[in-house]
Amino acid sequence: MLIKDVSIIESGQLQPGRDILIDGGKITNVGRDLRDESDDEPIDGRGKLAIPGLINGHTHLAMTLLRGYADDMELMPWLQEKIWPLEAKINEEDVRWGVKLGCLEQIRFGITCYSDMYYFPDATAQATKEMGLRAFLSGVVFDMKPELLGQVEPFIRRWKGDELITPAVGPHAAYTCSEETLLKAKEIADRHDAMIHIHLSETREEVDGFLLSKGKSPVEYLDSLGLLNSRLAAVHCVWISPEDCYLLAERKANVVSCTESNLKLTSGIAPLNTMMKAGINVCLGTDGASSNNNLSIFEEMKTTAIAQKNAYHTPADFSAEQIWHMATENAAQAFGLNLGLRPGALADMALIDLKKPWFWPQSNIISHLVYSIAGGVDTTIVNGKVLMQNGVIPGEEEILQKAQERFLRLTS
Amino acid sequence: MLIKDVSIIESGQLQPGRDILIDGGKITNVGRDLRDESDDEPIDGRGKLAIPGLINGHTHLAMTLLRGYADDMELMPWLQEKIWPLEAKINEEDVRWGVKLGCLEQIRFGITCYSDMYYFPDATAQATKEMGLRAFLSGVVFDMKPELLGQVEPFIRRWKGDELITPAVGPHAAYTCSEETLLKAKEIADRHDAMIHIHLSETREEVDGFLLSKGKSPVEYLDSLGLLNSRLAAVHCVWISPEDCYLLAERKANVVSCTESNLKLTSGIAPLNTMMKAGINVCLGTDGASSNNNLSIFEEMKTTAIAQKNAYHTPADFSAEQIWHMATENAAQAFGLNLGLRPGALADMALIDLKKPWFWPQSNIISHLVYSIAGGVDTTIVNGKVLMQNGVIPGEEEILQKAQERFLRLTS
Repeated sequence: MLIKDVSIIESGQLQPGRDILIDGGKITNVGRDLRDESDDEPIDGRGKLAIPGLINGHTHLAMTLLRGYADDMELMPWLQEKIWPLEAKINEEDVRWGVKLGCLEQIRFGITCYSDMYYFPDATAQATKEMGLRAFLSGVVFDMKPELLGQVEPFIRRWKGDELITPAVGPHAAYTCSEETLLKAKEIADRHDAMIHIHLSETREEVDGFLLSKGKSPVEYLDSLGLLNSRLAAVHCVWISPEDCYLLAERKANVVSCTESNLKLTSGIAPLNTMMKAGINVCLGTDGASSNNNLSIFEEMKTTAIAQKNAYHTPADFSAEQIWHMATENAAQAFGLNLGLRPGALADMALIDLKKPWFWPQSNIISHLVYSIAGGVDTTIVNGKVLMQNGVIPGEEEILQKAQERFLRLTS
Repeated sequence: MLIKDVSIIESGQLQPGRDILIDGGKITNVGRDLRDESDDEPIDGRGKLAIPGLINGHTHLAMTLLRGYADDMELMPWLQEKIWPLEAKINEEDVRWGVKLGCLEQIRFGITCYSDMYYFPDATAQATKEMGLRAFLSGVVFDMKPELLGQVEPFIRRWKGDELITPAVGPHAAYTCSEETLLKAKEIADRHDAMIHIHLSETREEVDGFLLSKGKSPVEYLDSLGLLNSRLAAVHCVWISPEDCYLLAERKANVVSCTESNLKLTSGIAPLNTMMKAGINVCLGTDGASSNNNLSIFEEMKTTAIAQKNAYHTPADFSAEQIWHMATENAAQAFGLNLGLRPGALADMALIDLKKPWFWPQSNIISHLVYSIAGGVDTTIVNGKVLMQNGVIPGEEEILQKAQERFLRLTS
């Protein structure tokens, strides 16, 4: 497949007139006047910008079904009165359509890979594959439902080696999993060289609780169990100390920051400046649509930049370039993906229609992608397969209707 | 003109199947099965939501031309090294195309009216009229350029009574205008029953400076000059005390909050909770594209809600309904506009394509408009005239190109 005459970003500048050649799931060449040996219709890239596909580092995709169902509540009533009673009724078919709805939205935001933690991971994996996205999926594990732990390894065995789905291990958090559960999760992850996906130090209450009961922060506690390593995606890390930062950096653990969810739930603002100075690999996630309420990594980039600037009174820090790097290269590093518009990289990308007023004047494309974009992704390609072209995703309307039916069933 | 079979919001709920009848610049009826006596082709509203046109309470629209030109800098180097040298070169023709670019963008965000402060207000007014938007326009006034004050009243006389353009008086700020200038501005505004548009208490430095030099806050200082009244749009008000809040409320002054600009420039987070408790009429603005960097009031709604929730640890406050009210009804009150989907109101509205995944499940439309919308405005109508239909704005591409030429000229 050939994308003809598209713009790309080189050294921060818009470079028009490039061709991108794709063979199977990989980019084989990027240059000028390339020729495609296949019979595929070339994609016209004129007036468009190609970017590497974005990664959503943390979500609960099935919860897209709960978007707008319970906003503007204190955390405990939100969970106890709204989310948990509804989740008790959620079945595999609900997860399937919630995930498909979330995939639709991610495709429209140029997201080609996401990292998920939820119930029924097989349903999530199947629905994601049908939608064509790449994903790191973990079934959630916590002690209130002891049966979940036993489902982790069979799930990993079923999906290990899949072209699009990478199974992972998802202990929910240090405060919802016993030491025994965390150690078992680690054992399984080590055996399969799988990632661990965990919520960590999200709220002050959580951290204070650990300091009081164990004399350790949650980060130090996980380290004492051997969980901090380069296969760890530690989500949130809002209330971590400089010592925690250096520990996470030394162990090469990855942090997924979810600014919009943290703000909406009033969890606080993560010390990204300290994390970056300590050398932690930080990337971005949207969290679930029930606490965000959309899945846009673009929106997350802007909110992260401006919330961080303001929190630390550093207008020159968290520059557009830094945030773009965080959302793209850091995310690729966290998940071990070869992403980028270069030969040998995965053919995961998005084309953005530059003829939208928020991209003009065409002065500083990275700034526009971080601070001013408000739509325009019109083509999304994953693993060399076109999932959306010129704004059209086949089957979209059926998914919207099915998601609505499932939501009505759940809330009836 | 008739909009057929559209959804509207009633008591927070989506109500499909309504018709909206427009005659001249007004809505004449909203109901079912309405008939249009005119020969106009009806607008198909199926699958769409009609909302009253949004108001952008504060911007410098010509500065859309400087989008992305200078981000991620400290305030003084930003002004001294980048913005002021460029502004010294800006001429009427630059303003004209910067304004048209900004109008394009606002049309795409469903904004039908904006309030502006900048140089060359006649060029802004002319370009805005050509684009068809409604606007409250003030030429900026400050003491460094004493000739500006003398241009205010002639500008008002030229535009007073225009159907779309309402001239106003724009003293830049209490710290850039002398007492004499502020009193003259008030005199002119009083004589013409015009609004005053002023930056107020944006930074801590500004407020501390007034407290030290005058023993008064900027709010108290303006009150001592008689400037606080219902025709005042006080922009920012980040560093105001509870006493300031009660004073602004008592005088019925309006506050325009610009959360994203305040965060990006690290000015701080305005005490909206205290303002609302004091009874101030608060609405929202984007500020200029050189400090935001787009003109979306939807984005401003979400960022305002989540930044305020987090700042005051009040997840249940700043609900979607409160924020929506702030962006719509409070804004209409501030500018004295009869806006709403009801007979007698101005025919200023936007139609939003609901078949976007971020509006599903269709559970809580106000929540979706505040927290999850990421595009979908496809028709914008001002004063009964269609400015965009199905995503098409006639002449858009020429404006993008002209804006680019003007930007290149300015930066060459």
